[in-house]
Amino acid sequence: MKTLVICSGGLDSVILAHKVAASYTEEQTLTGLISFDYGQRHKKELVFAALCAEHLNVPHTVIDISDVGASLSGSALTDDIAVPDGHYAEDTMKITVVPNRNAIMLSIAYGIASAQEADAVAAAFHGGDHFIYPDCRPGFVKSFEEMQSHALEGLGEIKLYTPYLNLTKADIAAEGAALNVPFDQTWSCYKGGDTHCGRCGTCVERREAFDLAGVEDPTEYDDPDYWRGVIERAA
Amino acid sequence: MKTLVICSGGLDSVILAHKVAASYTEEQTLTGLISFDYGQRHKKELVFAALCAEHLNVPHTVIDISDVGASLSGSALTDDIAVPDGHYAEDTMKITVVPNRNAIMLSIAYGIASAQEADAVAAAFHGGDHFIYPDCRPGFVKSFEEMQSHALEGLGEIKLYTPYLNLTKADIAAEGAALNVPFDQTWSCYKGGDTHCGRCGTCVERREAFDLAGVEDPTEYDDPDYWRGVIERAA
Repeated sequence: MKTLVICSGGLDSVILAHKVAASYTEEQTLTGLISFDYGQRHKKELVFAALCAEHLNVPHTVIDISDVGASLSGSALTDDIAVPDGHYAEDTMKITVVPNRNAIMLSIAYGIASAQEADAVAAAFHGGDHFIYPDCRPGFVKSFEEMQSHALEGLGEIKLYTPYLNLTKADIAAEGAALNVPFDQTWSCYKGGDTHCGRCGTCVERREAFDLAGVEDPTEYDDPDYWRGVIERAA
Repeated sequence: MKTLVICSGGLDSVILAHKVAASYTEEQTLTGLISFDYGQRHKKELVFAALCAEHLNVPHTVIDISDVGASLSGSALTDDIAVPDGHYAEDTMKITVVPNRNAIMLSIAYGIASAQEADAVAAAFHGGDHFIYPDCRPGFVKSFEEMQSHALEGLGEIKLYTPYLNLTKADIAAEGAALNVPFDQTWSCYKGGDTHCGRCGTCVERREAFDLAGVEDPTEYDDPDYWRGVIERAA
């Protein structure tokens, strides 16, 4: 199975790329990584996707859809709205929803996979995303694969490989440790500063995942202890 | 119902935009036209989409996804492969398939419709496209709408309005005549020259549709009579 991995440069998708690469001799071949420039504030993550591709010695394609991002206004991930601090599950984090982002990225990835005659697209959706983002849920994944079987009818079947769909981010971090993934070469923070802020939803989630997995987190955070208070308030 | 129309500047989608605009006082409001620059050779069609928006006095948005088009190599619509002459139904026309083009464009249109709080996206898929393009068929349309209901769960339902799905291009031309659509302000030819070539699949299909509908075709073709021979050979 020739697999194209959608890799943002974040923790989950970098671990996924390592997972597919590690199973090379069995059932999968990693044909390359694909990333999207949608005008995100944390564009810095793309540098880490490139590092991952270099590490795994596969091609890396960055697709510029910044003109699409500019039309999907209203999200704190692309606009001049402040990224809120706090836990992902909080209502304020809904402002980070970019409408239809995953359907857009997946359909482009499918087009490229079809052009390259790959037979799977891998994406790192996981259980922790389900609360906020409807386009990360199992029902979406299933219906997307079904839609693609119609769209590419007669052009070859392409599977949507989402091994983390029902796992937690802590489960993924544990797998990353087992695969010896260089965690310091991944980027999560939505604010996209010099170092991880430690306060936005994705920083809090990252810090918590390492803690729950019992895995050492090599990340440098501007506010390394903020997450504990957030988790305690959410409990 | 606030409807966003995907308009390429071609015959079918321009007529569709006029149809939605004409039903303004009844059930639909035309909120705008959206077009895609995917690096197509016949980019000229976008000028005609802009003309249509001007004519109907609605906003026109052109989304630049040319970087996506560059990655979907292998189609005569975007690459330096010659566009074949002849009837659409002929095998050689399959070279004009751009993998997953409609899933990509529709998912972007849905994202923009969601950001604009529109509740329908209209697309001019029609029966004549079913032979060649899997992503124009009723099964694709139904599964795409289903996928979107998952992707945008909780963000408001958006319908996919495809009134021409089971009509022929001749039926559409007849409707265009009834709506007084300025046919000379539409562009079909895949070759994108100064005038319509009259020989490529979409020129032959256009010429045939006007003929079958009994509607006068104001288009200037380089080779105005080529189509008859093609139709006779295909019959």
